[in-house]
Amino acid sequence: MSGGAGLGQADLDGVGGLVAEAGRLALRWFRADPAALGVADKGGRTGFDPVTEADRAVEGLIRAGLAERFPGDAVLGEEQGLTGDPDAPRRWMVDPIDGTKAFVSGVPAWGILLGLLDGGRPVAGWLHQPYLGETFAAAGGRGTFTGRDGAASPLRARGTTRMADAVMYTTHPNMFATEEERAAFGRIAGAVRLQRFGGDCYSYGLLALGQVDLVVEADLHPYDIVPLIPIIEAAGGTVTDRAGRTPVEGGFVVAAATPELHAAALALVNGRS
Amino acid sequence: MSGGAGLGQADLDGVGGLVAEAGRLALRWFRADPAALGVADKGGRTGFDPVTEADRAVEGLIRAGLAERFPGDAVLGEEQGLTGDPDAPRRWMVDPIDGTKAFVSGVPAWGILLGLLDGGRPVAGWLHQPYLGETFAAAGGRGTFTGRDGAASPLRARGTTRMADAVMYTTHPNMFATEEERAAFGRIAGAVRLQRFGGDCYSYGLLALGQVDLVVEADLHPYDIVPLIPIIEAAGGTVTDRAGRTPVEGGFVVAAATPELHAAALALVNGRS
Repeated sequence: MSGGAGLGQADLDGVGGLVAEAGRLALRWFRADPAALGVADKGGRTGFDPVTEADRAVEGLIRAGLAERFPGDAVLGEEQGLTGDPDAPRRWMVDPIDGTKAFVSGVPAWGILLGLLDGGRPVAGWLHQPYLGETFAAAGGRGTFTGRDGAASPLRARGTTRMADAVMYTTHPNMFATEEERAAFGRIAGAVRLQRFGGDCYSYGLLALGQVDLVVEADLHPYDIVPLIPIIEAAGGTVTDRAGRTPVEGGFVVAAATPELHAAALALVNGRS
Repeated sequence: MSGGAGLGQADLDGVGGLVAEAGRLALRWFRADPAALGVADKGGRTGFDPVTEADRAVEGLIRAGLAERFPGDAVLGEEQGLTGDPDAPRRWMVDPIDGTKAFVSGVPAWGILLGLLDGGRPVAGWLHQPYLGETFAAAGGRGTFTGRDGAASPLRARGTTRMADAVMYTTHPNMFATEEERAAFGRIAGAVRLQRFGGDCYSYGLLALGQVDLVVEADLHPYDIVPLIPIIEAAGGTVTDRAGRTPVEGGFVVAAATPELHAAALALVNGRS
């Protein structure tokens, strides 16, 4: 694939290699002695919110690799915030370990997320799950899944258009902070064929792989979702906030396998059907 | 390990091989074309309850292997019910694909479960997750985890004794059917450090691996939990129903990493603290 945003294939391959290296680093802490994890509590709204040494180390590695390759670009990361020129046209978004609650529980639903905004528009993204040995990558509108065996295949969401046929994932009901958000979630959860919790960032990968149809979540940070937007879109899916905009700011997010399913879900979320 | 129930090491190795063969068979359907899955609706209490061709094929393979090795034993399986002499001292319990909702969503939290009751007592169990290439096995009070690389290590739950330090998993809140059960779940969920949904049978494996501390679920069938009892106990964990008995009948189940944590959880479930 070629990247847009002035990135060539060699650049994309280099970033893919960096993400893989970050994955190998993260695995040093996965299922290791809990004391070695340095689990701290960031005090998020939903209670326990672990930050680990692994988070910090992985973000550091990715930042070093980006600085070497793209010295003029800005980088926004979960742990260190925004660095570089805030007005640079290209901004990388790093969530070193998205799904730290899964990570500290031994569940391989966490991932290393890296995304690229060009002029505020998401143009490339990577989701890497190193325990599964899987990478979801998209750039220039083309998406690829690479499995443990190294075989690559195009990302393609499935063709579900009706809510009654949809399989829907949400990480946890406590993402929905207000009465109104809980009611919106309830309307959509009541309309699907199968509603499940858990999944973290990996659910969006499964959507792009044609395994699930709908992911509805709230309270996301920009770096939780920006890397996933090109992946979902390259697979033919649609992802927006409640107002129907590309969710570069995070918040309440509706991702769907098809435009039709997305429209139906968004109407329910907004109480219009 | 040696097995109890008159099983020797060769028997146990043979059953382990059978479970691995069943895993390879199940993978033919995992993440395959949904049309090939033959997803039907069993109409369970909690709505959509998929049964797949894979379930039926995997149970058939395991039943054939057991019949060849242990012709006098009874077998209770999810798909075909009880076969063989109902008064036989040994009864095998088969859940060919525990977690079919995870299976049909592409999530590797499902597993092949096989357990052995001897005189009504769970004496051996296997949980195999073929996509991860992992097997949790226990017999004669000894438990082993075997990873994708073939390396085996003893199962050992971690030492958490206080609810405030516990990481707890439950597959879905709709497992709790009554107001009273939901209240019991709420008491315990409110007392732990981290409460997560999802996980299916794999959560019990993570408990035996020292990654999570507590699994509380309801509405389980005997074949959902019997195979896991020897695994949890061999790891040093405790698993009972609400009355504190070994949950050979399924139902409401509390599994904990330590006896102390189990006692604290059970007291909360039963409203005694």
